Amino acid sequence: MTVNKKIIFNDVTLRDGMHAIKHQYSKEQIAELTKVLNDAGVDIIEATHGDGLGGSSLQYGRSKETEETIITTAVQNAKNTKVGVLLIPGIGTIDHLKRAHNWGAQVVRVATHSTEADVSEQHIKAGLDLGMDTVGFLMMSHRVKPERLLEEAKKMESYGAQTIYVVDSAGAMVMDEIRARVSLFKENLSTKVGFHAHNNMSLGVANSIAAIEEGADRIDASLAGMGAGAGNASLEQLIAVMNKMGIESNVDLFKVMDAAEFVMKPMMPRPVQIDRLTLSLGYTGVYSSFLYFAERAGKEYDVDPRDILTRLAEMGAVGGQEDWIIGVAQEIAKEKKQTVGIN
Amino acid sequence: MTVNKKIIFNDVTLRDGMHAIKHQYSKEQIAELTKVLNDAGVDIIEATHGDGLGGSSLQYGRSKETEETIITTAVQNAKNTKVGVLLIPGIGTIDHLKRAHNWGAQVVRVATHSTEADVSEQHIKAGLDLGMDTVGFLMMSHRVKPERLLEEAKKMESYGAQTIYVVDSAGAMVMDEIRARVSLFKENLSTKVGFHAHNNMSLGVANSIAAIEEGADRIDASLAGMGAGAGNASLEQLIAVMNKMGIESNVDLFKVMDAAEFVMKPMMPRPVQIDRLTLSLGYTGVYSSFLYFAERAGKEYDVDPRDILTRLAEMGAVGGQEDWIIGVAQEIAKEKKQTVGIN
Repeated sequence: MTVNKKIIFNDVTLRDGMHAIKHQYSKEQIAELTKVLNDAGVDIIEATHGDGLGGSSLQYGRSKETEETIITTAVQNAKNTKVGVLLIPGIGTIDHLKRAHNWGAQVVRVATHSTEADVSEQHIKAGLDLGMDTVGFLMMSHRVKPERLLEEAKKMESYGAQTIYVVDSAGAMVMDEIRARVSLFKENLSTKVGFHAHNNMSLGVANSIAAIEEGADRIDASLAGMGAGAGNASLEQLIAVMNKMGIESNVDLFKVMDAAEFVMKPMMPRPVQIDRLTLSLGYTGVYSSFLYFAERAGKEYDVDPRDILTRLAEMGAVGGQEDWIIGVAQEIAKEKKQTVGIN
Repeated sequence: MTVNKKIIFNDVTLRDGMHAIKHQYSKEQIAELTKVLNDAGVDIIEATHGDGLGGSSLQYGRSKETEETIITTAVQNAKNTKVGVLLIPGIGTIDHLKRAHNWGAQVVRVATHSTEADVSEQHIKAGLDLGMDTVGFLMMSHRVKPERLLEEAKKMESYGAQTIYVVDSAGAMVMDEIRARVSLFKENLSTKVGFHAHNNMSLGVANSIAAIEEGADRIDASLAGMGAGAGNASLEQLIAVMNKMGIESNVDLFKVMDAAEFVMKPMMPRPVQIDRLTLSLGYTGVYSSFLYFAERAGKEYDVDPRDILTRLAEMGAVGGQEDWIIGVAQEIAKEKKQTVGIN
């Protein structure tokens, strides 16, 4: 397939990547990453707590720096690049958004679960009122059929969203599933369409290419794939593939390759990679930010984190039920004990 | 696309994976890996030096165990699974093949550069004479156009090869390039068709799926992607994706996930991953077994290994020119010195 437009890159190294560093980027690190991303030509740099505005909390993990420091540091160092923020209604508020806008954020992505777009109305309208580039972000898009997802996208479109994303939060979809959703959006929405990948089944780059071939306008990626769980599509790998295919963007391949290797990787507490656990996350389709909680609870209650994830998926867990995890771990531990007792 | 046949898996953990451990698997490790692969249901376990029969040498790196130990250990522990060997004419001979067959190997893959199939004639005929499952393996398939590759495959077919592989030795192809080659083979050959991926641009799994969708019968993969350079398609990731898509094989997902995590990973001297260097290998399209040589020469002569790889690609390097690398490193070092002198 020939792709004749320039793809816009929304970098998430400083937002989804926050998950992989437990929200502990320092001000200096934020400044350095923003500089290299700006210099490499990404179009938007999203910089917020991993769970968006207001995310720094006991429940979601406190960030090292304040929201103000994160955003203003990014804004100060993004000379040619817009800074964006993520806003999950219920975690972040319109007040948070107004402050972020005052600090210089120009893009807002209002994120809801794939069946709950109606909670985004006020926030999308607030973004538009502030004159921001306003995006709807449908998390866990694999949980519903394409037609159902389109219904939710239509709501976001009616609220005024200018771009609407298919979001593969758990890295749970294969190429055809991405194609089905993106092509349906392109045919039926007047908005721009975006795609956000996770790499749990090692399809982050391939799924992004599939989305682009179906007409996606904006793509998310991060240096070295820095992101929750198995990480996002790696910016440098995706640009390499796009260059090979002749698909244009504003991003310089060698600059992002160097930035990933020499700036990002030395900051990473552990490599973002696909392992038994993150592959299980993708395969079962639960939310990738559950990973650390499942690992922690698994250790505490001597339970296999895979069992926790599988149970969560059976229970229909989506984003935001981190508080279920302890209960599930306790339940499985209790079952194990009973089994041991019986034997 | 619907895939209605069962895919045959040729595991390369104990052959291409040899590169990633510098051919140093111990007898005990070979036994353990064979057992878990056999138990997980792979169809063929390839076990040889990374460069095939006769590969253990100063030039290609000596293996820890003898060829006899590698093959007999695999054969003894592969209760339900055939053991295969790789044979690169020029490195291995028909005598090597006869010995391997005596030790119990039942599959031979005769590998040549993508333009040199004619050197495979005697070896393919020898494999058939021995009653072996005999395969032609066209390395560096990205170096020639699909139609040209088909000409070489036709030669292998005329020698009697029962399966012919498209081999993406450097992880240098994108999905459409795989599709073009595999579909052309399927349309024009009476043989079975195979595909061997490398993951340099993170497309190992996606390219294997593309090959399967175009009708490939056999697919290579390895535990945790263990293989030269950025590694092969990861067996556990590929099976996860195939299960999601309803594509059948004899391989058990949870068994290979566990084997990758608990058996393979503890043996790995370093994680097989995509980094600046391996991504450069894929992007420039040089042979991934050059990696260690380029790193070593780069260190010795204070030259960026990427510069060595780029130069090798410009020179048209294919497999087997490891001896060029030192010369190239010296040349670049000399150029650097002159540049410094001029400035």
